[in-house]
Amino acid sequence: MPAKRTTIKDVAKKANVSIRTVSNVINNRDDQMRPGTKSRVERAIKDLGYQVNRSARALKTGKTKVLGLAMPDFDQPFIGFLVNAFDEAARRRGYATVSSLFGFSNERRRDFADSIPRINADGWAYLFEEPIHPDSPLFQQNVPLILISDYSSAGMYDIITMPNTESSQYLTNTLFDQGSSSIAFIGAPESLYDKSAADSDKLKYLIMNATDGNGTLRLKGYVLAHLQHGKEIPWNQVIPTKHMTSFSGVTATYNLLKNKVLPDSIVCVNDAVAMGVISTLIRNGFSIPEQIRVCGFDNIPESEISVPPLTTINFHIDQYAQLAVDALVSRINGNLEPANTFTSGFNLIERESTRIFS
Amino acid sequence: MPAKRTTIKDVAKKANVSIRTVSNVINNRDDQMRPGTKSRVERAIKDLGYQVNRSARALKTGKTKVLGLAMPDFDQPFIGFLVNAFDEAARRRGYATVSSLFGFSNERRRDFADSIPRINADGWAYLFEEPIHPDSPLFQQNVPLILISDYSSAGMYDIITMPNTESSQYLTNTLFDQGSSSIAFIGAPESLYDKSAADSDKLKYLIMNATDGNGTLRLKGYVLAHLQHGKEIPWNQVIPTKHMTSFSGVTATYNLLKNKVLPDSIVCVNDAVAMGVISTLIRNGFSIPEQIRVCGFDNIPESEISVPPLTTINFHIDQYAQLAVDALVSRINGNLEPANTFTSGFNLIERESTRIFS
Repeated sequence: MPAKRTTIKDVAKKANVSIRTVSNVINNRDDQMRPGTKSRVERAIKDLGYQVNRSARALKTGKTKVLGLAMPDFDQPFIGFLVNAFDEAARRRGYATVSSLFGFSNERRRDFADSIPRINADGWAYLFEEPIHPDSPLFQQNVPLILISDYSSAGMYDIITMPNTESSQYLTNTLFDQGSSSIAFIGAPESLYDKSAADSDKLKYLIMNATDGNGTLRLKGYVLAHLQHGKEIPWNQVIPTKHMTSFSGVTATYNLLKNKVLPDSIVCVNDAVAMGVISTLIRNGFSIPEQIRVCGFDNIPESEISVPPLTTINFHIDQYAQLAVDALVSRINGNLEPANTFTSGFNLIERESTRIFS
Repeated sequence: MPAKRTTIKDVAKKANVSIRTVSNVINNRDDQMRPGTKSRVERAIKDLGYQVNRSARALKTGKTKVLGLAMPDFDQPFIGFLVNAFDEAARRRGYATVSSLFGFSNERRRDFADSIPRINADGWAYLFEEPIHPDSPLFQQNVPLILISDYSSAGMYDIITMPNTESSQYLTNTLFDQGSSSIAFIGAPESLYDKSAADSDKLKYLIMNATDGNGTLRLKGYVLAHLQHGKEIPWNQVIPTKHMTSFSGVTATYNLLKNKVLPDSIVCVNDAVAMGVISTLIRNGFSIPEQIRVCGFDNIPESEISVPPLTTINFHIDQYAQLAVDALVSRINGNLEPANTFTSGFNLIERESTRIFS
């Protein structure tokens, strides 16, 4: 906490008026005010040395001790989970945080980029769910930036990422080891299908050579586990989605159910998708885990109260958020090293959605 | 969109260096830079008239065209739902938005209040889930404020609220009309019990005279519907919770299940609590809606993919957010009228969690 400074309340008390009256004087909303009131307030402001210009502090110190966190939108519960963790990690370092949204369109991103200097944070962490071109207006900022992302930054910025492939391979292997013989994957990035025209050899090539994108990297772990177990990849049970929301999971499940042979297990690209998958399976008369086992990634709080509770990969969100804050603060403090990549740990949280009952 | 202004990219191009190099010069991180590079960047900045001081714009216009939205934390999915709606409503008025968290402790709120002048928004909407004292540092700000809240602001600020009592009375009446004979309420504010020492006459008096708090006002609608139907209030089936999260719903359901006689329906204080209630009932072998009907408030996106899909009150979040943005922008533009209260509409969304199957 800084030393006590003069507040609007002190001014109001000294001038014997309400806080709102002081605010009205400051903001030139005083045309209906008695002249005596106005001059009393102005005198109190002057006597107390009250700082009315809200930009003055930033100009004086050059630092605002505020970190920004920007993402497309709040379309899935993981985002709120991350914002809480980021805010806690920032406060441990003495920073306040703000969050903002840059949407999905180029126009929105230009607008957002234009708002950054006005928001006045010392630096920004961007949460990217798709690759962003280095020429994007988002990057044309004169404050430090880092990425919370599974996409490369062409060496421009620090990246905070997760062990997507390793954890997915581990999860899929565990399902095989527990007796699964047919495992579907829901939430393959639709963009992969645009590139491969659904040619399975080309799809496999793209996946095996991928270094980017949490959806693709999680799918890669699933493919690697199949290879490790000497299994064919069941491409007709690898279902693409456009987004990673519960609603995407609902639609994808209906696409999966069109197949004549259903899997005994489903790896979902994240917990939100898994919840949509579970909802749709149950509404169509399937029992989980008895007929189909379902699991996800992220360990969002909702995964614990899902019906049934969801097996998922825990990426240690507190550690992940702390890595992001530490990297950003380090850049704000003048760290000139080349861009780094920081990766969280993971462990598997086994809950009832994959548990085999005898 | 403003007219094209000089960006850091233009400077980098003119000086024939990377954007990062320009950023390093601007932020005095140039101790390892060749003097020729540094002076070339400085010349380009000067030639192009590039505005390096991020506070300058705010100083010049006095307005940042940014609206702030602050809440305790992201502990429930309603918050993300509201942030999306608030951002969309703000953009329709030409404003960017930032969100920030003020936590639950006095210390956190002092820290947050101290960060407001540094964040630099033109005004703030506060989302309050409990009454805040007018002397709180949160209110000692020289920017316009409004409240998104079901608590009074002692006439100091505009309030955006919901028809909590009317909608709850309507919902409870509908359950009675559809044949429910015993309806529980989960999510009564724990604070009411602190005041009443669980004396049911005192509790009823407090509720009937309440004008504040979404939990209390929703409980009031439940009580009014009982009176309307000539029913005793089943006080042992009115279960308090400390928060309004899914986890609160889980704990409260176990408290309800201790009763010898169970209700045939449960009104939950919001959708998040309802999801915890449903999860716990199903895990304890109850079928919904056949044995127990469950419903909530807010119509969050997750209510649609709940298993079973959740009956809930829709408060028209888009309208609600637009009312908040319009009120705040009006104050920023100098509106001096006395504080107003703006109330959204509501309708009942009936889904399978209360539907009676024959």
